[in-house]
Amino acid sequence: MSRLTLALDVMGGDIGPRTTIPASIKALEKDPMLSLLLFGDNQQITPLLEKVPSNLKQRLTICHCSQVIENNQGLSYALRHSKGTSMRSAIEAVQKGEAKGCVSAGNTGALMGLSKVILQPLKGIDRPALVSLLPTMDGGRSVMLDLGANIDCDAKNLYQFALMGAIFAENQLNLVFPRIALLNIGIEDIKGYKSIREAAQLLAADTTLNFTGFIEGNYLLNGKADVIVSDGFAGNIALKTLEGAAKNVISLVRGQSQNHRLKPIFNWLIKLLFKDSYLRLKKINPDQYNGASLIGLTAVVVKSHGSANIEAFSHAIQDAALQARQDIPNKILAGLQKY
Amino acid sequence: MSRLTLALDVMGGDIGPRTTIPASIKALEKDPMLSLLLFGDNQQITPLLEKVPSNLKQRLTICHCSQVIENNQGLSYALRHSKGTSMRSAIEAVQKGEAKGCVSAGNTGALMGLSKVILQPLKGIDRPALVSLLPTMDGGRSVMLDLGANIDCDAKNLYQFALMGAIFAENQLNLVFPRIALLNIGIEDIKGYKSIREAAQLLAADTTLNFTGFIEGNYLLNGKADVIVSDGFAGNIALKTLEGAAKNVISLVRGQSQNHRLKPIFNWLIKLLFKDSYLRLKKINPDQYNGASLIGLTAVVVKSHGSANIEAFSHAIQDAALQARQDIPNKILAGLQKY
Repeated sequence: MSRLTLALDVMGGDIGPRTTIPASIKALEKDPMLSLLLFGDNQQITPLLEKVPSNLKQRLTICHCSQVIENNQGLSYALRHSKGTSMRSAIEAVQKGEAKGCVSAGNTGALMGLSKVILQPLKGIDRPALVSLLPTMDGGRSVMLDLGANIDCDAKNLYQFALMGAIFAENQLNLVFPRIALLNIGIEDIKGYKSIREAAQLLAADTTLNFTGFIEGNYLLNGKADVIVSDGFAGNIALKTLEGAAKNVISLVRGQSQNHRLKPIFNWLIKLLFKDSYLRLKKINPDQYNGASLIGLTAVVVKSHGSANIEAFSHAIQDAALQARQDIPNKILAGLQKY
Repeated sequence: MSRLTLALDVMGGDIGPRTTIPASIKALEKDPMLSLLLFGDNQQITPLLEKVPSNLKQRLTICHCSQVIENNQGLSYALRHSKGTSMRSAIEAVQKGEAKGCVSAGNTGALMGLSKVILQPLKGIDRPALVSLLPTMDGGRSVMLDLGANIDCDAKNLYQFALMGAIFAENQLNLVFPRIALLNIGIEDIKGYKSIREAAQLLAADTTLNFTGFIEGNYLLNGKADVIVSDGFAGNIALKTLEGAAKNVISLVRGQSQNHRLKPIFNWLIKLLFKDSYLRLKKINPDQYNGASLIGLTAVVVKSHGSANIEAFSHAIQDAALQARQDIPNKILAGLQKY
């Protein structure tokens, strides 16, 4: 592993530094070659670092920012008033070359807008998109985009998402000719919005892409497609619904063990009997799939959920580190020229 | 329970009569006061009834239809060529008073279009909607609509869905002042489509309704809202995603018991240890929540999933029977006048 510095907006997210700082420590513990620039309010950050061992502290730099972009700020307001905010400063650090990528759990629209302005989209991309990996039932993973960066999308936008998703899947999942599907409310040609039907025609006509048709919400985890493409509204609804459902069902099964008076023997039996199931359940733990990335930009930008817990924000940092070390933006650029 | 006759389109669904006929028998076994009119191809239906006891057969009438509306037919084509089809004939039976409601697993757009033309929307409703009940983690249920009948919706459509959903919740779930939420990609005022933000304003301004704001996909099962409102595209994606995720996670847990060589003791332990969890898992088995209803019409119309199995289609029939006996359309009409 190579040495790497990432810039974090530690003020974003529902809880802010009380989540992002412990998550940063966790990421540093796991990755001895990682350094972090923490953009945020010094007064809130410093007390949270008190008990951190000095060997980890050495790899942390606090970059004080007194301003924060709030979640309820409209995009244009947020962009106009973004100077000196933790989010903008973190992105600028990447632009200046001080960090190889940035992570924020803040306002998605603002992160998208600022990243586009400061880091610029890759040549040939109209709209960068939010992408994430989904676990599949057969133990694999699928790429899904857009997850909320672009609400209204035309056919060309969806086509570009498919292209970027395919390149992302080739690089992150080591796939050849990944299967692409469009999220829709049915598999018949006539289903869904006009933009989706037109995108299907564009994709079907492009023989360099492996377009397999429409996919419905109930097959998202079944590994039927390597790249699942949708507009950001439907994609966001689908992703959050998946996560909520998985969390709820897992908690139903796990909940029993918390209340049971036979807890010790119960836990032993669970380990014995459910070992495989539990390992597989653990695999679809949404905390591990928290990092969504903005792709189509010249640098790595990872958006964590606003509601991310320490574990989840730490995974987002690790995800950004992996993408930066894999040099994903340049691989997408190279892939765009290939197609 | 009162005597009741329902009209079934037995040709709809991915499998057709081989699912719908056994499901009909199952529904008759469970409901001794129920009679069914089976609209479909005599030649396909008759062999499937061979082994059915005569006491059940007495309550079945085959109404031969040689035509079927296919899933891949566009709406306008399907409507123009619907004469004599199993779906149209079943709806007409309701219109003529031969049945109190109908059930189909066929083409959703056609079912919606034909029902609007033949059965008519209730006075004051622009667009009927597909509604269903969702199980919640606290053991309750929520009402969700629209689930696929209307893809493009304006603020007024969404407002009317909320109104119908609230009346449906009051009647089906015995709730007073049910909590209404709009499905969105964030809870802040600025999030989502313009139509959703405007609908939020309409709902907030109506003090006879208990509007609580936006809800995200990950909270759909958490019982935070009694009525979850969205356009038909997002609603359909969310519902199918929920069902797929729940089915997948449940199959991960159950799958272990199928392969394990200690199956007998394993099953015994499962019963002993997981009794509550299993009962709760069973509660969110999507088969039991298969029936989605078209509301806003003058009569009961239940749309089963195309992929419904025997158990699921049988539940759709039972759901239609319940709604017909509860006289839901008239209760909605009365409710509309109250607001």
